[in-house]
Amino acid sequence: MPKITKAYCQNLDKKDPLAHLRNSFYLPKGKINMDGNSLGSLPKSTKKRLQEVVQKEWGDGMIGSWSSAGWFESPIRVGNKIASLIGAAEGEVIVADTTSVNIYKALCAAISLNEGRKIMLSEKGNFPTDLYMMQGIASFSNGELINKVVEPTAILEELTEEVAVLLLTQVHYKTATIKDMRTITKKAHEKGILVIWDLSHSVGSIEVALNDCQVDFAVGCGYKFLNGGPGAPAFMYVAKRHQKNALSILSGWMGHQDPFAFTDEYTPSPDIARFRCGTPGILGMAALENGVDLFAQTSVKALRKKAIALSHLFMDLMEQECGEFGFTLASPIADEKRAGHVAYSHEEGHGIYQATKKEGVVSDFRTPDILRFGITPMYLRFQDIYKVVRIIKNVMETKAWDRVEYKIRAAIT
Amino acid sequence: MPKITKAYCQNLDKKDPLAHLRNSFYLPKGKINMDGNSLGSLPKSTKKRLQEVVQKEWGDGMIGSWSSAGWFESPIRVGNKIASLIGAAEGEVIVADTTSVNIYKALCAAISLNEGRKIMLSEKGNFPTDLYMMQGIASFSNGELINKVVEPTAILEELTEEVAVLLLTQVHYKTATIKDMRTITKKAHEKGILVIWDLSHSVGSIEVALNDCQVDFAVGCGYKFLNGGPGAPAFMYVAKRHQKNALSILSGWMGHQDPFAFTDEYTPSPDIARFRCGTPGILGMAALENGVDLFAQTSVKALRKKAIALSHLFMDLMEQECGEFGFTLASPIADEKRAGHVAYSHEEGHGIYQATKKEGVVSDFRTPDILRFGITPMYLRFQDIYKVVRIIKNVMETKAWDRVEYKIRAAIT
Repeated sequence: MPKITKAYCQNLDKKDPLAHLRNSFYLPKGKINMDGNSLGSLPKSTKKRLQEVVQKEWGDGMIGSWSSAGWFESPIRVGNKIASLIGAAEGEVIVADTTSVNIYKALCAAISLNEGRKIMLSEKGNFPTDLYMMQGIASFSNGELINKVVEPTAILEELTEEVAVLLLTQVHYKTATIKDMRTITKKAHEKGILVIWDLSHSVGSIEVALNDCQVDFAVGCGYKFLNGGPGAPAFMYVAKRHQKNALSILSGWMGHQDPFAFTDEYTPSPDIARFRCGTPGILGMAALENGVDLFAQTSVKALRKKAIALSHLFMDLMEQECGEFGFTLASPIADEKRAGHVAYSHEEGHGIYQATKKEGVVSDFRTPDILRFGITPMYLRFQDIYKVVRIIKNVMETKAWDRVEYKIRAAIT
Repeated sequence: MPKITKAYCQNLDKKDPLAHLRNSFYLPKGKINMDGNSLGSLPKSTKKRLQEVVQKEWGDGMIGSWSSAGWFESPIRVGNKIASLIGAAEGEVIVADTTSVNIYKALCAAISLNEGRKIMLSEKGNFPTDLYMMQGIASFSNGELINKVVEPTAILEELTEEVAVLLLTQVHYKTATIKDMRTITKKAHEKGILVIWDLSHSVGSIEVALNDCQVDFAVGCGYKFLNGGPGAPAFMYVAKRHQKNALSILSGWMGHQDPFAFTDEYTPSPDIARFRCGTPGILGMAALENGVDLFAQTSVKALRKKAIALSHLFMDLMEQECGEFGFTLASPIADEKRAGHVAYSHEEGHGIYQATKKEGVVSDFRTPDILRFGITPMYLRFQDIYKVVRIIKNVMETKAWDRVEYKIRAAIT
């Protein structure tokens, strides 16, 4: 393979049909956001949109904006926009609460539909909050419900008729490994198990086909690839066929079929709205909606294509420039198995993370030794990838991490 | 009593020691916010603060702002600020989720501390979401837990040793009636019952003494008297003595004692932080914190004193100007029993609400016939009260509501 040069990368940018999308973002000089899978960058239009929400809608419109500015309907409206990114139909997605709370709602809803079955199943190493929410339910159930967490390789054999619900994350938060949603969902259904997919690292990054895979429930996160801002509200998908019968455990007034009747008795909305609970946070909702609206300029398919090209370039450059420094690829090498980030393990991982941060690489570290580099094709250029790898190389050559580590230790002791 | 004139009201404003607080708010011309108990007005500094959070913290700081800008600690930090408004100690209040979700967390926590008891008790006519959350828990419990909702007058006699938890709202959302938190809590404790107080219409409006009354749990709302913005995050109070043993049913990763260890096993934080669940919404949090910070310029005691004076003036003026038009006071007449709004019932209530809205009175209507006027002493002037009553009088004299009602009916049919 010929050597990859800076000029080669710049040329890839020139030919990139999505290059213009970058102009929609505020990107501070001297920093490269390789952590858009943790917190997506700020869309320029979000600044303006938030000023409008604050000044015109809250300041001038006051309480009336719940109807006149569409605040009340926003969980449904923004949900519909997200639905189009994940292969769901209109009326199947609601924006509400946090991902963790939506996991809880989905677990209880699935259990309510699968009466008599006791087991909630997931895998070790799943994102912790998924496992923790299962533990909370089990510990409040007086032994009625069982939290079962098995080795990832054992999931298929654990799909038995005692299992009520299977909770898995489609894209692993450390390695970016993509699970086979279609096959696993099908095998679970064969045993009557309902399936919840956590799409936190999928939505806006890879093509997701919820309806096509006949998924029962899904949840996901607004602040990663959707660029919804810090702690953006999360979303929940409930297949149409389940909406009328699934229990909404968090049966708050906003999920009532007529919230402003103020009756003593809860009558759930017959549709996705029953999975609303309390009053939606409008500032976060507005920022999320604006982030999601950027997808109208392109498609997840086109973004995914560019993301793969960026990831390839990153891995090739890491081999070319940093092959001698002891990095081990922790993500799948096959494109179809790797989603929106590339992870390497390195025994000096934390020090390298700190040292590259000083040089403007905004990335992420996950214990014990994982360096995580987010690939966000909306605003990353091929030349950014080149620059990042050169910074890593420089850190490795000068062993800059040693000094950083030293400082950290000095500060602690 | 001599006639109350506009000049008299203007003079009250001149003598008002809190008059300057109004300058902290953006108040649109031609409108008077008599619904600050539903959505508090926009503090001017919140506009600026949000721009800073968006541009500097999210835009420039990106993921690093979780530590450098204090995002991660914000639920505890803002919680401590709210604690000082409700008679709680540092480390007893957390800002998280919605009021409804916090009610759920508090109910499950109380039940976990009172093992063997089955009943969740509340009163008819309580704010619906309080009752609905109890119903959700009961319906998921396989008959293990019982949702009991009795007449308000029967609460004390229903305090038996079968009751696990009593859930009441301190200030009624329709009538503003204040319940006797001290006596009721004491009587419940005598039977071993844990008590949750919903402070949604109390916080920032009346003096609350949670610790002094030995309250077990409380929840409340950020978008009313705290001026935290539309759908601001809510808060939860857990008495120190319960924090270590109370179950956190929504056991998300943010409530783990070491969230970034990413372990498979949930180990709850030993303190108030265990009642965190998912990632906090930072835009809403920042707006809430800014609203709460305005209280540092004054005290709840001083605000309460002015609120009573404003309410008195409103009721006196309603008698003087609108005595002949068939309004019935739906709030207690005694100051110590009436909190931050004044409610009237009127058979043409909805039409009057609509007609006065056209004249710039931002108020509220609650079925079937309640007109609710919020008294927010931070930004309401005595002359505003005068103006509002004059508008109501004009509507009544011209029967303007008839025309409005007619239009509504015409639009429907």
